Amino acid sequence: MHEASSDYLVEPDPHDPLLTRRVEGVDHEQQQVTTSVVVERPLTIFLNSQEIVTAMTIGDYPDMLAIGFLLNQNMLLPTDRITGVDHDDDLDVVVVRTERSTDYEQRLRRQVRTSGCAQGTVFGDLIDTLDEVTLPGDAVLRTSWIYSLTRRINTTPSLYLEAGAIHGCVLCREDRPLVYMEDVGRHNAIDKIAGYMFVNGIDAADKIFYTTGRLTSEMVIKTVRMGIPILVSRSGFTAWGVELARQTGLTLVGRARGKRFIALSGEHRIVYDADPARAEVDVPRRNTRRA
Amino acid sequence: MHEASSDYLVEPDPHDPLLTRRVEGVDHEQQQVTTSVVVERPLTIFLNSQEIVTAMTIGDYPDMLAIGFLLNQNMLLPTDRITGVDHDDDLDVVVVRTERSTDYEQRLRRQVRTSGCAQGTVFGDLIDTLDEVTLPGDAVLRTSWIYSLTRRINTTPSLYLEAGAIHGCVLCREDRPLVYMEDVGRHNAIDKIAGYMFVNGIDAADKIFYTTGRLTSEMVIKTVRMGIPILVSRSGFTAWGVELARQTGLTLVGRARGKRFIALSGEHRIVYDADPARAEVDVPRRNTRRA
Repeated sequence: MHEASSDYLVEPDPHDPLLTRRVEGVDHEQQQVTTSVVVERPLTIFLNSQEIVTAMTIGDYPDMLAIGFLLNQNMLLPTDRITGVDHDDDLDVVVVRTERSTDYEQRLRRQVRTSGCAQGTVFGDLIDTLDEVTLPGDAVLRTSWIYSLTRRINTTPSLYLEAGAIHGCVLCREDRPLVYMEDVGRHNAIDKIAGYMFVNGIDAADKIFYTTGRLTSEMVIKTVRMGIPILVSRSGFTAWGVELARQTGLTLVGRARGKRFIALSGEHRIVYDADPARAEVDVPRRNTRRA
Repeated sequence: MHEASSDYLVEPDPHDPLLTRRVEGVDHEQQQVTTSVVVERPLTIFLNSQEIVTAMTIGDYPDMLAIGFLLNQNMLLPTDRITGVDHDDDLDVVVVRTERSTDYEQRLRRQVRTSGCAQGTVFGDLIDTLDEVTLPGDAVLRTSWIYSLTRRINTTPSLYLEAGAIHGCVLCREDRPLVYMEDVGRHNAIDKIAGYMFVNGIDAADKIFYTTGRLTSEMVIKTVRMGIPILVSRSGFTAWGVELARQTGLTLVGRARGKRFIALSGEHRIVYDADPARAEVDVPRRNTRRA
């Protein structure tokens, strides 16, 4: 089953007692049952002296989440030097300190509530920043990688398989998942990966981003801002997500379940090297859950 | 298949050309395909003279969304008299006017980013308001209703079945779905129903709320604030959602797929009147999609 773990730099820890709770309930046959549910706890993110946002998160990798959120909000710049990250897990506060002094009072006045859940996103500003990004044209997505990645990701022990009600985002290279983050909000999971890539100086040009969540405008904006040329999801699309992907040349593959998928942008990067009829695929994740 | 429509006061309109777009793409067999994707467009909500939030929404029922959002944020009070709702679909703006003058400048300074995606939620404040709510103790949830409701909802023509990537929320009474709203964010779908209930003076005490989304703290808070005693989902739970449901006496039923479900709060309202072995259930919604 669990064939991919050797490649992982970061993988889920479904047995971390801080991330799930066992609760008693009753099932459809009126039997008493005990089941696992994921936690969600507030984490207040400060940039230097300013409170930016309080995120609801499962609570792992608070430093990566804070850095990635600030990067994806364009509040922390790729050129910024981080002088420190302090996490107080009693106060549920994380403070990111930078050399450059920052002030986002004005920005925070306006809020945009996206379908992808980014709070406090100054959406227009973010879309403007996409013009500065040029995604690598020579990146490739082999269909055999799609099948291999989804099979490996779906069979990796995860909080999703343990407790459900959680999103996963996975940074991949070719057919290998490398960084697998989960969170109650997929915006948190992608932000944690953005933070991890920034802190560890990971190149985005040869990466594939996999998400369990829908391909909304927000997911496309974040993936493009991170410089990743290929975004794959087992979920569906929104029209604006497709539009932004086409404008930015992002390869957008959705509804990737079993042998099936649909590409609605950047099809030129796809190399059909697998025969779907013969491809070894995983049963859809939904059906394997808690099976 | 479509057995429930006669009961609907509001049901999805999967053929509304404003809600989906046809896009060209290529599938797993390298065939050119045309598929439907849901739209997401910004809607800026004003309360009187003040800009409150910009929501990403599919765009139907903007007046219900605005009213329901303001109610669920505790910015509009049940006692408030709405003197007008103006929607400008060129500017994507909706203005809700009230007799009482309002000012939420201070509130909007702090933001909470919830796993359920409510922007600008002053989360602490909302949780405080739950103490004022007492859910009716005599409400009942028959297990035969759970099976009937999920079957009816899953077989109702919807944007989900047409295009996927969308959440549905359904206000139900006994075994009958009454108000079925969809949106790219489930927080929008529940807000539209809150707005509809307020405008039409619909009693919450004998209702059941069904959502396709996860049972997070935000969904529990909104359901309780709306005065609905029973919340059912085909998706899973978060620990805080369960905790808040237990504190407020909400009946919380999740993972309702096929014959299976788990109740983690308010089990006393459940009446086991159906034999799961004989219950006529729908195939899981995921598998029926675009089939």
